[in-house]
Amino acid sequence: MGFPVVGIVGGGQLARMMATAAVGLGVGVRVLAESPGSSAARTVPGTLIGDGADLDRLRTFARGVDVLTFDHEQVPTAHLVRLADEGVVVRPGPEALVHAQDKVRMRSRLTAAGLPCPAWERAVDADSVAGFAARHGWPVVLKTTRGGYDGKGVEVVSSRDQAVAVMASLRAAHDDLLVEQHVPFVRELAALVARSPHGQAVAYPVVESVARDGVCAEVTAPAPGLAEATALEAARIALGIAGLLGVTGLLAVELFETAGGGLLVNELAMRPHNTGHWSLDAAVTSQFENHLRAVLDLPLGDPRARAPWTVMANVFGPVDPSVPSMYDAFRHVMARDPGLRVQMYGKEPRAGRKVGHVTAYGGDLADTRERARHAAAYLMGEIDE
Amino acid sequence: MGFPVVGIVGGGQLARMMATAAVGLGVGVRVLAESPGSSAARTVPGTLIGDGADLDRLRTFARGVDVLTFDHEQVPTAHLVRLADEGVVVRPGPEALVHAQDKVRMRSRLTAAGLPCPAWERAVDADSVAGFAARHGWPVVLKTTRGGYDGKGVEVVSSRDQAVAVMASLRAAHDDLLVEQHVPFVRELAALVARSPHGQAVAYPVVESVARDGVCAEVTAPAPGLAEATALEAARIALGIAGLLGVTGLLAVELFETAGGGLLVNELAMRPHNTGHWSLDAAVTSQFENHLRAVLDLPLGDPRARAPWTVMANVFGPVDPSVPSMYDAFRHVMARDPGLRVQMYGKEPRAGRKVGHVTAYGGDLADTRERARHAAAYLMGEIDE
Repeated sequence: MGFPVVGIVGGGQLARMMATAAVGLGVGVRVLAESPGSSAARTVPGTLIGDGADLDRLRTFARGVDVLTFDHEQVPTAHLVRLADEGVVVRPGPEALVHAQDKVRMRSRLTAAGLPCPAWERAVDADSVAGFAARHGWPVVLKTTRGGYDGKGVEVVSSRDQAVAVMASLRAAHDDLLVEQHVPFVRELAALVARSPHGQAVAYPVVESVARDGVCAEVTAPAPGLAEATALEAARIALGIAGLLGVTGLLAVELFETAGGGLLVNELAMRPHNTGHWSLDAAVTSQFENHLRAVLDLPLGDPRARAPWTVMANVFGPVDPSVPSMYDAFRHVMARDPGLRVQMYGKEPRAGRKVGHVTAYGGDLADTRERARHAAAYLMGEIDE
Repeated sequence: MGFPVVGIVGGGQLARMMATAAVGLGVGVRVLAESPGSSAARTVPGTLIGDGADLDRLRTFARGVDVLTFDHEQVPTAHLVRLADEGVVVRPGPEALVHAQDKVRMRSRLTAAGLPCPAWERAVDADSVAGFAARHGWPVVLKTTRGGYDGKGVEVVSSRDQAVAVMASLRAAHDDLLVEQHVPFVRELAALVARSPHGQAVAYPVVESVARDGVCAEVTAPAPGLAEATALEAARIALGIAGLLGVTGLLAVELFETAGGGLLVNELAMRPHNTGHWSLDAAVTSQFENHLRAVLDLPLGDPRARAPWTVMANVFGPVDPSVPSMYDAFRHVMARDPGLRVQMYGKEPRAGRKVGHVTAYGGDLADTRERARHAAAYLMGEIDE
């Protein structure tokens, strides 16, 4: 076989960073992007512009590629089943991917397999939510079954009246809702694994993820102070889910750590994930390369960390529109820290939008964290020295 | 200032790897490539096809970029002077770059500055070569002043008769020749530095380079067993040349180490260099990123190694045409060594052509070297297990 071509549906930064990894492997990449200004469309030649929810467009796109994979979860499952029936190699396959697309399917399957999840049920109406809360306590979490990301489609509600309003608002976007117990977690962890069609799997170090307004803002690898038993259990859960669902490619399992080191599965993603961006500069093999290797059924690369501590901080578009171009800030952050790694996504820096990330690694956690935080804050114009 | 666009003249693998580094910085890249099949043309959108020796083409290309830099040394100096006069920002500038293009200019300048070079002079005719040999001994080295690379345009000759034939052959390509003492070197070293227009400079660890048929085949970082004083002297020479010539961007100084630890300058290159490819996977900041940071006058990144030992082995197109696609060999080399780093250039694997490289790093030199050598040999079809 010659060098294959991987088709990525979605033109965001994940596609962009996967494409960069593909360059090194000599593997071809094509992207189906939302617009010519999309993150990956700016850097990948021959990008096709189109909607990943349009079956004809997907079919056209798939014709030129050997494997189809994804930058996001928004492609309708039915389209993927159809493409797979037509002979397109879809990885992860639709029967796996649906569990990252449909939270009811995911919760049902995981609960049936005995994997630890928060208590949950379908949210039929405000009465059923109130009934659930009577058993598990207020507040509860209401979620859309499909379409949520970065904290969107997820609301914490504390009363039946609030549930009525929130359900109406969430249903404007998506019909089906579920209600979950509000977990009093100590912190959020993420366990990333890559799994190939052969069944080979590797696990990245378990990381700690800190959110700001429901969006991942900072990731520390490995999770500081994590008990070894808990780390092993997190990896076991992630590898177990990957095998159970037959995932090919990356699987990110977002977890709640509860007091006493208990773990509950929060969300799944079957693609490179924000909590794995640290691996780009500080693991032997990045999540982007391992996702490609997995969907191509190549042997997987070593997922281990190359430094005792790595901290990745997301860079968001500045809230203050008078903040100058982030490029102007490069001079300061690079001069202050010659070891800092900067990754920009080529996106317009609209307020609150993820436009890049910075990574620091080193032997001292506090120092490493300070370096990453400072650089991100400076790039966002939140500090000026 | 918004994010600038760097224009790279030449579409080889150096442009390709620079473009990948630019993606991370969010910096735009355009490439002027020889053909649509060129290494970088395959991976960089909006690549212009054209000849870097055509002034009009260069002018068109330069219009869309903020800084012009290079993948090779083949752009005529006069064209660059003209473009610079017209306001194009050319880095390295033509007055520096000419010393990597014209070996007589380089030797004259370095000799005048007291930098250590082999004995040399212009080779006017066979008699002058014989006269030079009478003073310095046979064999001598004949070189074209311009246009040589990867051992091309360089011949070792052992007699006046041989000199007559070689001079006729070399002159078929380039008029001006020089003759140099054949240095009885112990090994070849390379010292890479990056220097910005501000005058900031950083030095990479000094490496050992091993050639096969005149072409770099393997690089070890740092050079094993190199005396600290010699390493410091090599870095001092490279930093001295960068300052003397006003280089902006990467400067690679190829050196001969003689018995007793003496150093002589062999060749210069003012761009990322094969002896710096190890830095892509095993330095804090790769030579490709530091070249971009230098030509953009951004603060330079930390050039230090991230592992005790790194070995980079070039992968050449197989001599045996029956060897299957290198992609088929990925399965074996990746399964054998999950820590191996592979970098392919997207080039047709013609016999003897550089089509990629592999990098291994680790704590043990012999093991690291074996890993890199094995992977390169397997990819080339030279071994089958």
